[in-house]
Amino acid sequence: MIYFDNAATSFPKPEDVYLAIDNFMRNYCGNPGRAGHKLSLQSGRVILEARELVSNLFNVKSLERVVFTLNATDSFNIALKGYLKPGDHVIISSMEHNSIARPLKSLENIGIETTIADCNIKGEISVLDIERSIKKNTALIAVTHASNVAGTIMPIMEIGRIARKNNVKFMVDAAQTAGVYDVDMQTMNIDFLIFTGHKSLFGPQGVGGLCFGEEVDIVSFREGGTGSRSESLIQPDIYPDRLESGTPNTPGIAGLCAGINFINKVGMSNIRSHEEELFSYFIEKLLNMDKVKVYGPCVKNKQTPVISINIGDIGSSEISYILDSGFNIATRSGLHCSPLAHQTIGTLEQGTVRFSIGYFNTKEDINKAIEALYTIAKEV
Amino acid sequence: MIYFDNAATSFPKPEDVYLAIDNFMRNYCGNPGRAGHKLSLQSGRVILEARELVSNLFNVKSLERVVFTLNATDSFNIALKGYLKPGDHVIISSMEHNSIARPLKSLENIGIETTIADCNIKGEISVLDIERSIKKNTALIAVTHASNVAGTIMPIMEIGRIARKNNVKFMVDAAQTAGVYDVDMQTMNIDFLIFTGHKSLFGPQGVGGLCFGEEVDIVSFREGGTGSRSESLIQPDIYPDRLESGTPNTPGIAGLCAGINFINKVGMSNIRSHEEELFSYFIEKLLNMDKVKVYGPCVKNKQTPVISINIGDIGSSEISYILDSGFNIATRSGLHCSPLAHQTIGTLEQGTVRFSIGYFNTKEDINKAIEALYTIAKEV
Repeated sequence: MIYFDNAATSFPKPEDVYLAIDNFMRNYCGNPGRAGHKLSLQSGRVILEARELVSNLFNVKSLERVVFTLNATDSFNIALKGYLKPGDHVIISSMEHNSIARPLKSLENIGIETTIADCNIKGEISVLDIERSIKKNTALIAVTHASNVAGTIMPIMEIGRIARKNNVKFMVDAAQTAGVYDVDMQTMNIDFLIFTGHKSLFGPQGVGGLCFGEEVDIVSFREGGTGSRSESLIQPDIYPDRLESGTPNTPGIAGLCAGINFINKVGMSNIRSHEEELFSYFIEKLLNMDKVKVYGPCVKNKQTPVISINIGDIGSSEISYILDSGFNIATRSGLHCSPLAHQTIGTLEQGTVRFSIGYFNTKEDINKAIEALYTIAKEV
Repeated sequence: MIYFDNAATSFPKPEDVYLAIDNFMRNYCGNPGRAGHKLSLQSGRVILEARELVSNLFNVKSLERVVFTLNATDSFNIALKGYLKPGDHVIISSMEHNSIARPLKSLENIGIETTIADCNIKGEISVLDIERSIKKNTALIAVTHASNVAGTIMPIMEIGRIARKNNVKFMVDAAQTAGVYDVDMQTMNIDFLIFTGHKSLFGPQGVGGLCFGEEVDIVSFREGGTGSRSESLIQPDIYPDRLESGTPNTPGIAGLCAGINFINKVGMSNIRSHEEELFSYFIEKLLNMDKVKVYGPCVKNKQTPVISINIGDIGSSEISYILDSGFNIATRSGLHCSPLAHQTIGTLEQGTVRFSIGYFNTKEDINKAIEALYTIAKEV
């Protein structure tokens, strides 16, 4: 199996990730922060290490403002529902995922309105358009760092500057970029950073995260046992406890630690270079292929190695099915939970066949994908 | 290390659980329900298998009403906030955990009131007291199947009958009993069943669950990508998608499957017998020990193998610390996230030293605990 679905979840993971999870499960899987015995303390240290690693990776100002969640969707719900108030206005781009679009849709019921700033057909946004959308009641600008459909990289540094200048808070979805592209909460003026552990951070599914700055406060979304202030029926006010209730996914967090340690060892820029090289090689071939439509900017500095294509007018699911069953190549077809993005790039009906390259892909993988696409394009 | 903290999280796990997680991670960790390729489909089958196993275990009427969550606290928040409406009245017992008490406290802000039905000093509830607390606006009775502090088993069959008779919905917290004690949603008239995967179901931390009956509906708590109806910005109405957004903890769910399969192989009644035997042996010794106070019913049919004790008036943390550091015995001290329960059994200040027995404990473990307690009690 040649795996090109890294934007959905990365596979394989570094060997250390497998070992870290297994080691946690077999040797010290106590409940962290719930008791004083050795296993519980050791388990607690895993969570602390993860907070430190995440904090260093994204330059988060305070460790207690790194919160672990179920997934990026969970993080969005915690941040949006805990920060926004009735009457608030939010600006998002037209390349956003349903993980933010759907909670915002449901928040319309309590009087929170959303403006969708249109991107061009490559998924590129105009920073001026965003600035022009700011109103008196704008509380938040939220954009993805890179589209999960077309790979388009958003100018988050510029958008952050605009947000700060206009005294509006800034939220970034780093689900597609964390661990490969630089994300710095301080220099980029990011107030809320959403990430997931199981994509380019190499952790297992089941761990997401939310980092937030010292200028914002988030009301609790999920109250419950925290192992702290246990005498009180009221959710503790302190972070991260206010936002982390119940037993965390400690084996998952142990895996995430190993994933981030792997990135630090290899070097983020080396990972990026490798992926960019494969991306550029693949894109060049695709652009010269008959019947193949390629979406997105198609330039390495403007696009992550997430490549959406179609062959003629054939349904994307059909092509993905042939790639899987006939060539043992895993891609994702359809809408990728992002109808806004497909509307923007003009593929709402056809969907796209998405090749998302990961660190463990090789030039050989790309060659096989190209061969397969040649064969399919010739036959259909 | 002798581990007596199984009520916080079970340890060790069956070998098959370790293998299932590692096998998932290494061999087929696709994102379930997000694509049509082999790894994604194989991953999706794990989730389906888990739904079937859970549904069989608890006699859930429809598979799509088995929902996976981050933990039991998450399940409580989803069920309570998605079901209750302003003006509703809820009855809980005075042995409940903060995982339900804290969300209900926060729901007071939107006009949901809670009555706490007092239990006696052993943590036992009067079914009549519950029935007497029912008012015109009572929407829900929620009780734990067994206390995480004193082990007290609640008469959920009788309470379920009372609830049905009075046309009130019934919620049961099976965090301490799932996999060891019978839980049957149909015969017990349970409308909402909360469970966690990482205790007596032998799964890893990071997976909880919620099962609910066909007579109730739950509004979405967390909207986002579901891999279904991706063209719409509105959260899908169908279950389980309505309540399951974002990538699930699939490796955790794979581990949970292995845990439940282990229970089915060994037999729930064999697991229970083994634990009851150790419980009875331990309790008898404890009741005859100088200076040792034992809480709860102290009878196997009325109590799970969760045993709370104190030695004289010494702080529970001090005893747990000595047990850990001097005897390599892991217990949990303090309030166990259940201040209501400690108020009920009279230990709000001292807390308790909690020994929670699991299937992998042996008579030898109990003997060592007894020896240690003799030594400590003699010296303090």
